[in-house]
Amino acid sequence: MHTELISIGSELLTGKINKDNAYLGEKFQDIGLPLSLEITVPDDRDIFKKALRDSLSRSDIVVTTGGLGPTFDDLTREVIAEVLGRKLTFKPELLREIRQKFARRNLRMPPNNRQQAYLIDGAMPIPNRIGTAPGQIVELKNKKGQKRIIMLPGPPNELIPMTEESILPYLKGWGRRLLIKKHVFHIAGITESGIYEKVKDIISRKEREGKQEISFSILPHRGIIDIVLVGKGSNESLLNRFLDRKRKELYRAIGGFIYGEGDACLEEVVGRLLIRKNYTIAIAESCTGGLLSNLITNVPGSSQYFLHGVVTYSNQSKMDILKVRKATLKRYGAVSREVAEEMAEGVRRLAKSNIGLATTGIAGPTGGTPTKPVGLVYIAISKAEKVICREYRFNGSRKDIKEKVAVYALELLRRTLKK
Amino acid sequence: MHTELISIGSELLTGKINKDNAYLGEKFQDIGLPLSLEITVPDDRDIFKKALRDSLSRSDIVVTTGGLGPTFDDLTREVIAEVLGRKLTFKPELLREIRQKFARRNLRMPPNNRQQAYLIDGAMPIPNRIGTAPGQIVELKNKKGQKRIIMLPGPPNELIPMTEESILPYLKGWGRRLLIKKHVFHIAGITESGIYEKVKDIISRKEREGKQEISFSILPHRGIIDIVLVGKGSNESLLNRFLDRKRKELYRAIGGFIYGEGDACLEEVVGRLLIRKNYTIAIAESCTGGLLSNLITNVPGSSQYFLHGVVTYSNQSKMDILKVRKATLKRYGAVSREVAEEMAEGVRRLAKSNIGLATTGIAGPTGGTPTKPVGLVYIAISKAEKVICREYRFNGSRKDIKEKVAVYALELLRRTLKK
Repeated sequence: MHTELISIGSELLTGKINKDNAYLGEKFQDIGLPLSLEITVPDDRDIFKKALRDSLSRSDIVVTTGGLGPTFDDLTREVIAEVLGRKLTFKPELLREIRQKFARRNLRMPPNNRQQAYLIDGAMPIPNRIGTAPGQIVELKNKKGQKRIIMLPGPPNELIPMTEESILPYLKGWGRRLLIKKHVFHIAGITESGIYEKVKDIISRKEREGKQEISFSILPHRGIIDIVLVGKGSNESLLNRFLDRKRKELYRAIGGFIYGEGDACLEEVVGRLLIRKNYTIAIAESCTGGLLSNLITNVPGSSQYFLHGVVTYSNQSKMDILKVRKATLKRYGAVSREVAEEMAEGVRRLAKSNIGLATTGIAGPTGGTPTKPVGLVYIAISKAEKVICREYRFNGSRKDIKEKVAVYALELLRRTLKK
Repeated sequence: MHTELISIGSELLTGKINKDNAYLGEKFQDIGLPLSLEITVPDDRDIFKKALRDSLSRSDIVVTTGGLGPTFDDLTREVIAEVLGRKLTFKPELLREIRQKFARRNLRMPPNNRQQAYLIDGAMPIPNRIGTAPGQIVELKNKKGQKRIIMLPGPPNELIPMTEESILPYLKGWGRRLLIKKHVFHIAGITESGIYEKVKDIISRKEREGKQEISFSILPHRGIIDIVLVGKGSNESLLNRFLDRKRKELYRAIGGFIYGEGDACLEEVVGRLLIRKNYTIAIAESCTGGLLSNLITNVPGSSQYFLHGVVTYSNQSKMDILKVRKATLKRYGAVSREVAEEMAEGVRRLAKSNIGLATTGIAGPTGGTPTKPVGLVYIAISKAEKVICREYRFNGSRKDIKEKVAVYALELLRRTLKK
């Protein structure tokens, strides 16, 4: 069973982000009808017609989004009718519903909305609670079996309820009687290739056991790496056992690097660890410039453990607020292991917290030297009079570097708290 | 001249939002090579091969994104080479560059990154400053003229600089001779409907003069409102004069609200004002939790004027670090005009800076009361012994509120500095 998606709209080819694709892609995968292709076409009759013909020749289900509006460049109804060789018929009952929607908002219906009351012969209308354009489903029977065209409007606030309320129930049971289960493992504090080396034997092959099949993929984003494990099959308990075995293999290889699964977010994981240990934390930032405090305080309830943060950009403020010694700054420079350690200890003492966390480094784009290049960073953690410090070298833009430092600092903190 | 885009990656068909499309769509339109079609394919050799063959048969330029990584499901290089009937050749100089990227970060290159050093015969490599995968451009000559394939990596932080630095300069001059000019005006410190009321007579109609046409749109995002003015035409000087007239109308109506145009960003505008006045600044944050310092330090060179920030989440730290009086906290509470003012003055005195900026409020989701609801915020600015303070009420999630407070604080600072 092949499913394809055609997105219609010139705006999608000239700068507008298409969120319908992502939404439908996920939902269709969940019901066992994963998209095998997506095509975006402009509001152009010929290009759309050609794409639709190609798509129909390859697939069992073609979903279209967009082009159902009331203006001259809304071509979906007409083009699909033409390609199928069917007529468009005016439906008074559809017009009545559209008029009522305007009436409820005390508006008169503009004349051009009338075109939304045309239905392709033999199609079923799909109710649209939010907007004025009904969707349509056309079922085609031919020698090769049955094909379906599903037409949805483009705005997500119309498309999403129509999908949940009508399309998914309509398609349910059509999907290959296939269960699809997904586990996402989040990893920080290591590079993509570094983690790949450790897990390639586990993840680089599709495996099957009878009709159950699993596969892995790696998705890096902003200093964080996700390993995605997808299982497909028809027998739920066999599939669960298969996934569980793979999950355990993964944890045996890289369990220490996995900070969470699914919706878990690193700053929340760290927050929960602090609460569990009944620890408080204070943060001293130089190169991250407030980002680390910002991430930690994004977590609701963080005031329970976060006492304060300081962003000491100048040497003077490192001395005044954190009591970093002038001699240390002079001898080693602001970007050094020694200063990072004194910052972490200084901020912990100032706050009387259990933990002090500090960052210092060169975020660039300027300010680097041959011995201290852009991207050189020290992260220090002070805990009960003991202090640890790590050196890193990151690349990317100023913002990229800030983001990576923040993720690595949170991960270092997580591992320290786990001990 | 037809341009098509092929996005490669199973994740794009199963729930991941594709932002590269929107970015490339806009850039290619700007240079007169608008995309006529976009196709998303999974990491599947056969589907990709078929899509590429179709795309090459229709277009003059085919751009691909994704599939250049170091793992087994990165197929772009191989599939394109196969479809073109060309070999992939190992390039020691590319490997050297990839190795150097790891070396600069004190890492050993994992063996699988070696596959990124293969170039399609006859292709030009496109440098990638951020990631390890170089892009490639292949030029094909045949009876019908010349075709081009441009291969880019998927991560936007790699794709965007490569497009700006290599691809757009390479393609410039190839496009159609339709001029498209865009002005974007950035506005903060006012709601979308507030600004719409002031400009609706100017922006709510398309206007033309001969073949020159202009239109406006409003795009609100994260506390900032953009007004976009687009002009299309064939005569550059007529179009420029038309746009200029509209721009002046807009400034007459709402000039005081516009903090910048185009690439301008509010924290940079504020930074330039501080430099021009030779002022230094220190920041005290409660509800914004470090976000304000983070935004200010995102600007390269901000260490010139930003002395330090403090994130005083606890009452104790407000007293210890900022010398907020216990009596003030007790009488008015931490979220009050009086505490905001003492925070702004306290942080200015601590840093001996010209300006002190402070935020205090309730970011939620809990912690609100009937008299002090979630979203109640005070922003104070202390300057030369004078202090001003404003009260606001924002809505949205915890993160939404933090972002809006940061934008309103920067805008209040901008207007104070402008006086």
